[in-house]
Amino acid sequence: MKDSAVLLIDCPDQRGLVARVSSLLYAHGANILHADQHQDHNLGLFFMRVEWGLADGSPSSPHAFDLEAFKTAFAPLAASLGMNWQLTVGTRRPRMALFCSQYLHCMADLLHRWRTGELSCEIPVIVSNHRDVEKLAAFYDVPFEHVPVTAATRAEAEARQVELLERHGVDFVVLARYMQILSPEFVRRSPNSIINVHHSFLPAFTGAKPYHAAHARGVKLIGATSHYVTEILDDGPIIEQDVARISHRDQVEDLVERGRDLERIVLSRAVRWHLDRRILCYGNKTVVFD
Amino acid sequence: MKDSAVLLIDCPDQRGLVARVSSLLYAHGANILHADQHQDHNLGLFFMRVEWGLADGSPSSPHAFDLEAFKTAFAPLAASLGMNWQLTVGTRRPRMALFCSQYLHCMADLLHRWRTGELSCEIPVIVSNHRDVEKLAAFYDVPFEHVPVTAATRAEAEARQVELLERHGVDFVVLARYMQILSPEFVRRSPNSIINVHHSFLPAFTGAKPYHAAHARGVKLIGATSHYVTEILDDGPIIEQDVARISHRDQVEDLVERGRDLERIVLSRAVRWHLDRRILCYGNKTVVFD
Amino acid sequence: MKDSAVLLIDCPDQRGLVARVSSLLYAHGANILHADQHQDHNLGLFFMRVEWGLADGSPSSPHAFDLEAFKTAFAPLAASLGMNWQLTVGTRRPRMALFCSQYLHCMADLLHRWRTGELSCEIPVIVSNHRDVEKLAAFYDVPFEHVPVTAATRAEAEARQVELLERHGVDFVVLARYMQILSPEFVRRSPNSIINVHHSFLPAFTGAKPYHAAHARGVKLIGATSHYVTEILDDGPIIEQDVARISHRDQVEDLVERGRDLERIVLSRAVRWHLDRRILCYGNKTVVFD
Amino acid sequence: MKDSAVLLIDCPDQRGLVARVSSLLYAHGANILHADQHQDHNLGLFFMRVEWGLADGSPSSPHAFDLEAFKTAFAPLAASLGMNWQLTVGTRRPRMALFCSQYLHCMADLLHRWRTGELSCEIPVIVSNHRDVEKLAAFYDVPFEHVPVTAATRAEAEARQVELLERHGVDFVVLARYMQILSPEFVRRSPNSIINVHHSFLPAFTGAKPYHAAHARGVKLIGATSHYVTEILDDGPIIEQDVARISHRDQVEDLVERGRDLERIVLSRAVRWHLDRRILCYGNKTVVFD
Repeated sequence: MKDSAVLLIDCPDQRGLVARVSSLLYAHGANILHADQHQDHNLGLFFMRVEWGLADGSPSSPHAFDLEAFKTAFAPLAASLGMNWQLTVGTRRPRMALFCSQYLHCMADLLHRWRTGELSCEIPVIVSNHRDVEKLAAFYDVPFEHVPVTAATRAEAEARQVELLERHGVDFVVLARYMQILSPEFVRRSPNSIINVHHSFLPAFTGAKPYHAAHARGVKLIGATSHYVTEILDDGPIIEQDVARISHRDQVEDLVERGRDLERIVLSRAVRWHLDRRILCYGNKTVVFD
Repeated sequence: MKDSAVLLIDCPDQRGLVARVSSLLYAHGANILHADQHQDHNLGLFFMRVEWGLADGSPSSPHAFDLEAFKTAFAPLAASLGMNWQLTVGTRRPRMALFCSQYLHCMADLLHRWRTGELSCEIPVIVSNHRDVEKLAAFYDVPFEHVPVTAATRAEAEARQVELLERHGVDFVVLARYMQILSPEFVRRSPNSIINVHHSFLPAFTGAKPYHAAHARGVKLIGATSHYVTEILDDGPIIEQDVARISHRDQVEDLVERGRDLERIVLSRAVRWHLDRRILCYGNKTVVFD
Repeated sequence: MKDSAVLLIDCPDQRGLVARVSSLLYAHGANILHADQHQDHNLGLFFMRVEWGLADGSPSSPHAFDLEAFKTAFAPLAASLGMNWQLTVGTRRPRMALFCSQYLHCMADLLHRWRTGELSCEIPVIVSNHRDVEKLAAFYDVPFEHVPVTAATRAEAEARQVELLERHGVDFVVLARYMQILSPEFVRRSPNSIINVHHSFLPAFTGAKPYHAAHARGVKLIGATSHYVTEILDDGPIIEQDVARISHRDQVEDLVERGRDLERIVLSRAVRWHLDRRILCYGNKTVVFD
Repeated sequence: MKDSAVLLIDCPDQRGLVARVSSLLYAHGANILHADQHQDHNLGLFFMRVEWGLADGSPSSPHAFDLEAFKTAFAPLAASLGMNWQLTVGTRRPRMALFCSQYLHCMADLLHRWRTGELSCEIPVIVSNHRDVEKLAAFYDVPFEHVPVTAATRAEAEARQVELLERHGVDFVVLARYMQILSPEFVRRSPNSIINVHHSFLPAFTGAKPYHAAHARGVKLIGATSHYVTEILDDGPIIEQDVARISHRDQVEDLVERGRDLERIVLSRAVRWHLDRRILCYGNKTVVFD
């Protein structure tokens, strides 16, 4: 979405919403690249994602798309229809902070995807309560900050983390197997802006040691889940899940190993979809536009 | 889609298509239930599926949706934009003919889904070159026609089949493991109106005995494919595919058994999506709207 | 396993178990068709499944395998090694009772598989608290017994069910979406002999209305689980699980429909594996031999 | 398998094979950790993998397992039964060479898995016809060799590669998206010792640009395949395959991106199973022991 704009809308459903939004875009000469809508008929809600080009003009509007003019026209329409909306311009790369502890498979995976252009963002800082990631951060030329956390220093550590996020102008945080629980205050700072990966098929096996719990229960599939963090542990809106088949032959350590592939995949998809502005949260659920 | 209308459109892409279609629907008071678009940027094509309610009116148009008025207004717009379009009304149930030979798992599955309301259509006739299906057809109260086929009588048998399709006002044909090859003339009668299931992950293992071929090649997954029939064997637009994991322990008969579950699923999905008017064919491919 | 015998063993692990069992079989001229072992190193347990032909002799033992002679020799060995063991002869077809309520998709699926030879067993009786299945039972020539259940008559109904199971010499019961909870007494009658399908990915969403719960939680995959019934609801040893991807577009009724395919598959696999004597229970888990 | 030995056997099937091998191991005091057999009844072949501990003794043989004594006793037995066999000791780490071109996702993935202990081997050298991998190799402290290949210098380049493999004592080669075709002579050097990943669900879409071919055909799933290299392109024994669902929305570049996750997974599994000595080749197929 480098040279494009994305408009995300949610509002009470009513007739004519698509017509009114698409007509306004057409009137401003937008070249729509993707458009998708969803209605939740039970809740009476309407969701829309529309993406259009910014660089190329049209016969009737030969220059680049005039975003300011569109916003000026759209704001009163949105207000009259009770819309929540976010307009994002692809030319500005979001700033993502990565948090991890000692397991580095998700971190290594995200950094490689970022280096090869799969993730279109800036990574101004990597934060960890351990030093294991330091060399990897250096290899990818990302500043590393060591913020140890103990029961006694938790509040202080979080204050330091917040200061780092603010200093680096961070837009969202990805917990790439960060094993510390964040305080409600930290989570409340920026709703739907912290992405976590949990190594189970939520809502099964919340909390610590989910692979041990899965092994004890004798399940035949293990899973992993990426979700936005809320104040309740492992309970936030689910972004993506995947599973892998296991058998009685697999011990806990085999589950851990198989699970790493799942964790990498569900977390990297969540990050990519977040960057592509494909995700809308409502209630405790997500709409993920294709 | 019982009380709804579905409009399927494909045309050269240009700006304003969504705006113009949705504005026209809005002007006629449509209550849009689902709308989805797709652009193929390489081919410069636009695809749209929009579904709206027929029974319920609106404040500005309190009675049932006036379909004729909409068609009268839409036709010239569509012509001016070079649109191919199909407008289907859910109140008319399509008429599906089922063909089979001796393997009855897909047939039994489709009939059960139909009986329980999962497939919203009429089944005026079941045709087979064998008599194995006769009792099953009777159980579901579907007329059965035995049309034997030999090399010598192929043309005659097809003439009889065509006569049956016409007499029963059949809209589309589902080949539920029908093991005879249809002539090009038969296929040309009604493009994209014959759905087949092939027991491999196409384009691998076209032709006869695909499970034997899969076993001989030593693949680790087997598949099944539902597709529209074209004049070239196993080459038509793919509607759905699925796979299952196998191992070195599985002999050909195991693949046949595992494969039956895949065949049932990919064929029943194809039939349902066809009935829901979710499928648009272009070139030799399909758009399957969610 | 028509003309074969299957020996299932579990015992404390120690050296030489495979050697001693396989040597004894070899000494009796067995033609081993499949053999599989598993050790749970944490629990120090050994599991073995071995299947051999009964009809064909060998140069040293040209007649059919002498099962009685083998049993006479094996029993003291097994006792000395602390083995639990079950020896099953494929020539005797197990007797399966099917229970259902009003949803018939699993029932129709199992009966079709049975008719086509996929499930090698007798079905002496179908039991239901409703009459919906009656015609289907008649089509497959299986005796149907209507046993209504109300809160007031639960004990009486179970007594009737037990009487039916005994009269028909039933070996195991399959709950094909039977919506009544069985009493602990009923379950204790025959451990690991009642197979249930639960329409969720256990241990997530135990209890009633799991698809509603899955929809409310916003999961991205739904599942189904087949398991042996124990006295604790939805808690018995898991035999098989599978999942299907869903999206925000899917309403509860879509989950129900997608889920039916999962339920059919996980339940039919469980029944087949149970019939093939592939399943060993230990603790609250299963070993399912390939 | 660090402190264990693995014996892989294939031979004509006959009675008593398991008994004779397991009895001999028992007589030498082996503590069997895993044992698995497979019979191909059509071909009359028997396959066995057995793994046992080397460090721990037993009451009757209190010291470490005497491998040489076992080999001395086993060799004549194996000869008399027509066995092909390989005995591998886990204490010696195999030496793997990695080849790549410009796409580094598989390389980065394998190196990370190796660093974290998931792959138990030495990597004495990374070879590429490009320099893109050089920094990554340096980060993981693996010697890098740049061997450019042109049509004119192919033979010379291969001679250089062979020299590198010999100098570094390489046991097997992994082609981590190495985009050059190897000569029959190179392949013949060491049968079943070159592992490749092909970015399609073989046998569909052999040769160049499989994602383009998959997009053109309109498949609904894409795949990746790891296999041993033979003299015929993309035709060797398949080790592992996996697939991912795509839709009409996915362009070729989306397939490429989705496919990278598949490639990483099927290649890393193949390497791990090869290292664990789980794979036996016969004809053009593999047995992959669980």
